[in-house]
Amino acid sequence: MAIETLFNPRSIAVVGASTDATKTSGLPIKFLRQQGFAGAIYPVNPRVSEIDGLPCYASIAALPAQPDVAMVLLGAGRSVDAVRELAARGTQHAIVLASGFGEAGEDGRQRQAMLIEAAGSMRILGPNTIGLVNVTDGVPLSASGALASGAFLKGPVGVVSQSGGILGALLSRAAARGIGLSKLVSTSNEADLEIADFIDYLADDPQTSVIALYVETIRNPASFRCAALKARAAGKPIVALKIGRSDAGARAAASHTGAMAGSDRAYDAFFRELGVIRAQTFGDLIDIPAALSTQPVLKGKRVAVLTSTGGAGTLVADGLGLIGFEAPVPDSETIEKLRAAMPDGHGALDGNPIDITLAGLQPDILKRCIESLLESPSYDALTVVVGSSSVAQPELISDAIRAAAPAGGKPVLAYVSPHAPEAAARLTQQGVPAFNAPEAVASAFCALWIAGQLPPQAEPPADRPVVDLPPDWQGSLNETQAKALFAKYGLPGVGERVVSNPDDARAAAAAFGGQVVLKILSSTITHKSDVGGVAVSLDADSIAARLGTMASEVETRTGIIPDGYLVQEMVPPGGLELILGCHRDPLGAVLLLGMGGVAAELMQDTTIRLLAPGLALGRDEALVMARELKTWPLLDGYRGRPKLDVEALVTSIVDFSAMVAQLGERLVEAEINPLFVLPVGQGVRAADGVAVLQLQPVESPSVGLD
Amino acid sequence: MAIETLFNPRSIAVVGASTDATKTSGLPIKFLRQQGFAGAIYPVNPRVSEIDGLPCYASIAALPAQPDVAMVLLGAGRSVDAVRELAARGTQHAIVLASGFGEAGEDGRQRQAMLIEAAGSMRILGPNTIGLVNVTDGVPLSASGALASGAFLKGPVGVVSQSGGILGALLSRAAARGIGLSKLVSTSNEADLEIADFIDYLADDPQTSVIALYVETIRNPASFRCAALKARAAGKPIVALKIGRSDAGARAAASHTGAMAGSDRAYDAFFRELGVIRAQTFGDLIDIPAALSTQPVLKGKRVAVLTSTGGAGTLVADGLGLIGFEAPVPDSETIEKLRAAMPDGHGALDGNPIDITLAGLQPDILKRCIESLLESPSYDALTVVVGSSSVAQPELISDAIRAAAPAGGKPVLAYVSPHAPEAAARLTQQGVPAFNAPEAVASAFCALWIAGQLPPQAEPPADRPVVDLPPDWQGSLNETQAKALFAKYGLPGVGERVVSNPDDARAAAAAFGGQVVLKILSSTITHKSDVGGVAVSLDADSIAARLGTMASEVETRTGIIPDGYLVQEMVPPGGLELILGCHRDPLGAVLLLGMGGVAAELMQDTTIRLLAPGLALGRDEALVMARELKTWPLLDGYRGRPKLDVEALVTSIVDFSAMVAQLGERLVEAEINPLFVLPVGQGVRAADGVAVLQLQPVESPSVGLD
Repeated sequence: MAIETLFNPRSIAVVGASTDATKTSGLPIKFLRQQGFAGAIYPVNPRVSEIDGLPCYASIAALPAQPDVAMVLLGAGRSVDAVRELAARGTQHAIVLASGFGEAGEDGRQRQAMLIEAAGSMRILGPNTIGLVNVTDGVPLSASGALASGAFLKGPVGVVSQSGGILGALLSRAAARGIGLSKLVSTSNEADLEIADFIDYLADDPQTSVIALYVETIRNPASFRCAALKARAAGKPIVALKIGRSDAGARAAASHTGAMAGSDRAYDAFFRELGVIRAQTFGDLIDIPAALSTQPVLKGKRVAVLTSTGGAGTLVADGLGLIGFEAPVPDSETIEKLRAAMPDGHGALDGNPIDITLAGLQPDILKRCIESLLESPSYDALTVVVGSSSVAQPELISDAIRAAAPAGGKPVLAYVSPHAPEAAARLTQQGVPAFNAPEAVASAFCALWIAGQLPPQAEPPADRPVVDLPPDWQGSLNETQAKALFAKYGLPGVGERVVSNPDDARAAAAAFGGQVVLKILSSTITHKSDVGGVAVSLDADSIAARLGTMASEVETRTGIIPDGYLVQEMVPPGGLELILGCHRDPLGAVLLLGMGGVAAELMQDTTIRLLAPGLALGRDEALVMARELKTWPLLDGYRGRPKLDVEALVTSIVDFSAMVAQLGERLVEAEINPLFVLPVGQGVRAADGVAVLQLQPVESPSVGLD
Repeated sequence: MAIETLFNPRSIAVVGASTDATKTSGLPIKFLRQQGFAGAIYPVNPRVSEIDGLPCYASIAALPAQPDVAMVLLGAGRSVDAVRELAARGTQHAIVLASGFGEAGEDGRQRQAMLIEAAGSMRILGPNTIGLVNVTDGVPLSASGALASGAFLKGPVGVVSQSGGILGALLSRAAARGIGLSKLVSTSNEADLEIADFIDYLADDPQTSVIALYVETIRNPASFRCAALKARAAGKPIVALKIGRSDAGARAAASHTGAMAGSDRAYDAFFRELGVIRAQTFGDLIDIPAALSTQPVLKGKRVAVLTSTGGAGTLVADGLGLIGFEAPVPDSETIEKLRAAMPDGHGALDGNPIDITLAGLQPDILKRCIESLLESPSYDALTVVVGSSSVAQPELISDAIRAAAPAGGKPVLAYVSPHAPEAAARLTQQGVPAFNAPEAVASAFCALWIAGQLPPQAEPPADRPVVDLPPDWQGSLNETQAKALFAKYGLPGVGERVVSNPDDARAAAAAFGGQVVLKILSSTITHKSDVGGVAVSLDADSIAARLGTMASEVETRTGIIPDGYLVQEMVPPGGLELILGCHRDPLGAVLLLGMGGVAAELMQDTTIRLLAPGLALGRDEALVMARELKTWPLLDGYRGRPKLDVEALVTSIVDFSAMVAQLGERLVEAEINPLFVLPVGQGVRAADGVAVLQLQPVESPSVGLD
């Protein structure tokens, strides 16, 4: 496995090493010596003969052996040359620290292309990276100032960061919190090795049980998907902080690593589909792994809050309530057990927080209370609040928890109320993750809950014949073509006829009977009603005249003469308007279901899914989507109204997603708006539609040679 | 001023003092001695003759003088006796630490009443309090274990907490962060002295410039209002963490201090009205005061992020973007200045974050860059990111900021990326509040923005004649009465007539002409349409028969025979349905404006205001309310639709709030639903209404004596 060598090289060349250990180029060798790296270190610098007692080589060509890994500490231009020479020496990996590549405009992008060309089959970490740290084996290949303290804690959390500074911050913050790390790597520009390569590696790494990611952009969704699924199969949860949630952040991220950030909601859907837990704050990025790496997953959302100080317990309960968790009062049997444990019957034992006051300082009482709460069928988890009185003796709590919960079926987290970082770190190291923010406790429980849920499985669209599309369906389709496309995948449209003159319109209206709708037909005008191109409640008597006024109004307002007109059946009353659509995001195909009607864009009542290539939604997941809408009750018989045809809606969502799966990249975007969901038994109707198919490149005529 | 004595007593009796300094009852004297309290300390304990060298008195009666303040460290029952004796001795204040009072069920409530009776004119802090700390003058009157460290920092932040444990946590957290405090007090059960008393005191205290509150419930909104307005007038911002945001938290808060929590949105509106800044997290409760007490208010939302480490700068920019702040790129003049400051032209100077790389370690460069950014017309504020490279020398940054910003017109905050608590505390003490969470930076800027905004002023309703209500309008009014009530305050209803039989209905429909609505009239049936009590689009021909079927359907479904029927004009098309209502919250009258229609409750597109007693909204604020709705664009000519009569809507909101102000407590609740807002020039129509007036107590018939 190639990356194994990167983390555990037998020999390291440090190209551009400096004798000045306060300079960035002097740090890597200093850190390697500090950590007692056992392999060979080859400094390369033509101007000195030795560095810190190590013989220094004048050039890469002069190295005594081919190094497994090289760190390149030169400027951008000279780095390219060094990489070429390293590749020629058969070096397996080069870590390139210089900036001035893909993140630095067009010149930088060209230089990055040269770098990759120079590397040949040698793998590159970076450029613009701060390197990596193998904490497990004590191998620092990094110039991060954060390594200077030398005090890292070995443990099960692997970190992959697209920012070098963030890697350093996580290293120092984790150590201070008592959270152990396995491997850290900064991928930065990802000219070659990228996040997915390291997730893949950590999924196999026996010292890693949780993977934390700092993500600015995912350049390769397909490889990320494979690696994330591999980690999941290995039982290793992934926690990702994806920045660029705001416009300002997105722009900053783009300028930082020269990457385009995908839209934020698509990332939410992508992570959800892969079971990746999204960290909401920078703090979460270490707090959540601390919980996931030591605690069992949550099987329910009922948390007991055991405290010796009321206010802090209330803060924690409030934080849990805000994310939809419960803090129920104990059952009567548990209250009896708690009372029996408390010698003087003091404390508030029939509430939650369960306040055992200063009696919580007595080990036996504390142990019996924890035992009672963990045994209680009323609770799925426990939080212990550490107050000013108990910070001096964190072992009191960790010992009691260990003694009380030998089987460990329910997670236990601690909240430390006063400023007491040493006590919190000790608790964390002893297996009880301790947090100093109530929100962190809530986030950690939330992650333990998500980690216990199976993400929904997409599925290959069931046995569907491949649909042939007419060769002239290219680019933006008109309404009739779009609905015909949808119909090929089973999505029913309203009855309609294309007409080109008033007489045909009258005949069509008469054939439908009753009231009809008249619309212009155009592949260039998207918002027909905004230009006077839609009229409702017409009949055979009135339609011909209306067509005339519509034609002139549309032409006056847009200068466009419609391709023709549509006469459509009126959709029967009593239904609900929804939107069903898809578009291509850098991460994949985004499927959207939402409330329709005039206020739809204002209310933003929508839910999305990211579809893996070739996969469609199953019925279960389609129903989950519908239920996620705020408007769901209107489908489900709200306040005495008739229930609508949810079965038919679910079928539509499945069919639409199957269309997206089958057409793949050929489908640029598609939307049914409105999709009318009628009362039970009456199905759905696509009343209008938009579809854009990729333009086939026009073949250029062959040019004769003569 | 009475409370001044509580914080600065000349003499203190400690009733129930223990010789064992590890016990709660041994702590207060230990802390007083540690802090070098200069006044007289009188321990009271019949079983010992001296404590820590102080003569101990056998009883309160035996004290050599009347103490200014007494701390009562006895159990609940004996505390009542001690309070009675202290009052008899002429003690000014007693601090009662015992629990077992108002927070402990009915027995406790009775005991609390006895305590208050025993105190007479003596003021009580507590019971169930941990006491107070006067940091300014070194007077600790508390048994909080958090005082043991003795290391507090004097400063401008005053703290009032309804939880004793939270007081201790804030004390230790603030000290660790380099944030100085003036006075801290735990009010807890508030049998006598309450939050408002201490806000009032701190508003006068020259050592306090910002007030931080931990609030479980506001028992007395009127006194809170006065005190908060006094603090505002004194230029002292108030920051409040109000817990009970979730159901779980609300219940926990109730059980903690025996208080009922008001609804959370009403608190939002209450704080907003008073200009109180609401902290969203426990961390904010000290982070925000740290910023407010040292930085000028924000005059705009454009922030420069100066960094030497890209990733952390991006995190900060992302966090700012999430709360609606901007991180624009520098103007060209500023870019030139930055380039001129940087010797080698390195760094990303035309973006934001502005990344000056390791050049930021050179004092002159850093100073010139900070200067350029603070001078730039593109920015209202600056954040400096402290990376691993600069944590060793925080003075570098604080010196540069001081040198660059002598006038101090724009706020500057620091974000510390690695774990470096000492550096952050030093920066904070040097006047540059430093935070270790990007969200904290964003919250602090947000607070600096709010602090610079004038909260909207409510106003007495302009010259309105007092409206007389018929004496029989009591309890729940029927629809016609409710709309007649609204009409008395200027709110127009739809044209309607009350009828009792089919013939009258026919005549009424004929008189209106065109289409009409028929509704049952009932003060007991609230949701008329749910029971078949509403029919639309009727005319004089069809209405009589429909009345008959409606009567039987309603009776079948509810068993109720309607009081009568309403024949109403149909509201002309093209309008928008809103809801305008009010109800009584423990904090005051809540005015609500929201989207109407069938999906209104699902969409929850509403905005509220809390009305001070006797005050109404002005037109400006009424318009702000309307603009806060997601549906606002539908009022304002959305996508080519006609503009609606916003002027008339604003008048309605003002009139409705004037009604609420004038009727006061007599109006229990009222709602216009739907309130139709018609196209410009056509006004609004109240199409249905509910009003509940307080029942006047029925006078009991006088009973003869014979």
